[in-house]
Amino acid sequence: MRKLLLVSAVLLVAAAPPSKPKTPSEIVADAPPSAWRDIPADDLLVMDLRNGAQVVIQLAPQFAPVHVANIRALAKGGWWSGAAIYRVQDNYVVQWGNNESTRPLPQGVVAKPPAEYHRALKGLAVRPLGFADPYAPTAGFAAGWPIGYDSKAGTANLAHCYGYVGVGRDLSPDTGTGGELYAVIGHAPRHLDRNIAVVGRVIEGIERLSSLPRGTEALGFYKDASMHVPISAVRLGSEIPAGARPAYQLMDTQSASFSAYVKARANRKDDFFIRPAGGVDLCNASVPVRKKPA
Amino acid sequence: MRKLLLVSAVLLVAAAPPSKPKTPSEIVADAPPSAWRDIPADDLLVMDLRNGAQVVIQLAPQFAPVHVANIRALAKGGWWSGAAIYRVQDNYVVQWGNNESTRPLPQGVVAKPPAEYHRALKGLAVRPLGFADPYAPTAGFAAGWPIGYDSKAGTANLAHCYGYVGVGRDLSPDTGTGGELYAVIGHAPRHLDRNIAVVGRVIEGIERLSSLPRGTEALGFYKDASMHVPISAVRLGSEIPAGARPAYQLMDTQSASFSAYVKARANRKDDFFIRPAGGVDLCNASVPVRKKPA
Repeated sequence: MRKLLLVSAVLLVAAAPPSKPKTPSEIVADAPPSAWRDIPADDLLVMDLRNGAQVVIQLAPQFAPVHVANIRALAKGGWWSGAAIYRVQDNYVVQWGNNESTRPLPQGVVAKPPAEYHRALKGLAVRPLGFADPYAPTAGFAAGWPIGYDSKAGTANLAHCYGYVGVGRDLSPDTGTGGELYAVIGHAPRHLDRNIAVVGRVIEGIERLSSLPRGTEALGFYKDASMHVPISAVRLGSEIPAGARPAYQLMDTQSASFSAYVKARANRKDDFFIRPAGGVDLCNASVPVRKKPA
Repeated sequence: MRKLLLVSAVLLVAAAPPSKPKTPSEIVADAPPSAWRDIPADDLLVMDLRNGAQVVIQLAPQFAPVHVANIRALAKGGWWSGAAIYRVQDNYVVQWGNNESTRPLPQGVVAKPPAEYHRALKGLAVRPLGFADPYAPTAGFAAGWPIGYDSKAGTANLAHCYGYVGVGRDLSPDTGTGGELYAVIGHAPRHLDRNIAVVGRVIEGIERLSSLPRGTEALGFYKDASMHVPISAVRLGSEIPAGARPAYQLMDTQSASFSAYVKARANRKDDFFIRPAGGVDLCNASVPVRKKPA
């Protein structure tokens, strides 16, 4: 018989007897409705690839409002017609876009957005991670997102975790319009934190990006256009008729369920584990997302 | 023009003027021959897939000697004939093996190896990472490998970084023979550290594993055998004739070049970067490996 090997971080297995501490997945499965928040339809970016795959991104207007407004205007303005995935670099990013130098930006798109690489800590209710972080003075969660933050400087930034989406840019002071995006498909490249506008995360279909063939040119660019993966449509959730619109919920990072989840992620006690780690990396305590129950 | 977006962690770009601090890739490119160590041919496990792809693994006998001896005996004993990749779980692992319950183990394979999940710190020359680690009291490098270590307990363990290879097992006290292996293809699942025998790392061809289609069953298992990726041969480097044998070198983790490399990884000052992180994650300071120069 094939060995089960490793119990997944996210998937779950049979119900444990009551004496055992709950696994992270059991905590998520058992979380009460009050622990979940609907994700607004206007915060969903639904990308259809011509190969039939669909990828759903949750936008983070709390952290990069001008870039997110751009991304909404680009979707509504038909920017993505003719766009493609043209770069897949192993253990790094998948990148897609349209030609920003030859194509006019749709109406309402700010050509030179401010550097929304961090925001004010003030106004955010923070749930500290409680474990060390090599990239920020402290790490935690706010408004459903993983952040690094600096209480002294009063700033907070989204973290480049697996599946997180950022805005391609040239050298500073260019910050990118949002017309070229990338998603992380490897070990979190947190050195990019506070250097790029992070605008959201893939909440469904990241495996349709991460399993694409790697580009063979420098930085993972595809050698020629025949390898590109064309994008057939990018729509906001709010542009999709209510009946056909996908709907998701996010675990409230201020909820007791989320606290229990982080604690369990740091102290795995499933039968498979012998020595709980006693800690967890910010990007390994990914905020639970689910399809909204009918 | 397409934006370059992000300068890769590993690849490099044009030479910088002398006044600028070197990038990590420049430090690697400029490292003197004395900073490099040959990887012994007996520490190389060369896996050929029937789809034509080749994957090269460097074994870590310093950390899991009995499991590594098993893996060598399995290769020499023809264990991998008929084996396949049968599990690909996104942001987690690719797993391959042969049927351990129906197939006799080759001669010399220890059926129940000890739990080589950590080793004595004593005897290792450690180069501390110098930055916080959420999974171990301290993190660093020893004998060319990234480790978590505990000076008080006197133990050190290999870290589950991207591309690292571990031994599939059932529930404890089973530790796995080495007849089923997995490689990490996502954000480092460090909660597995000290719970599984880590036996090496992929040093060439990880992208041939990480881009495989994801399994659709629970835990990423492929639904049926028709989706399996057959393995055509697994050989030690030492079994391959000297002329055809691949040869690699590893940067000495005690060298000045490696110190400079870690420092530069923690403080990226290439033109693209605006704010150096001031820190780096253990798994983001991957030990440089290169083909041995002719």
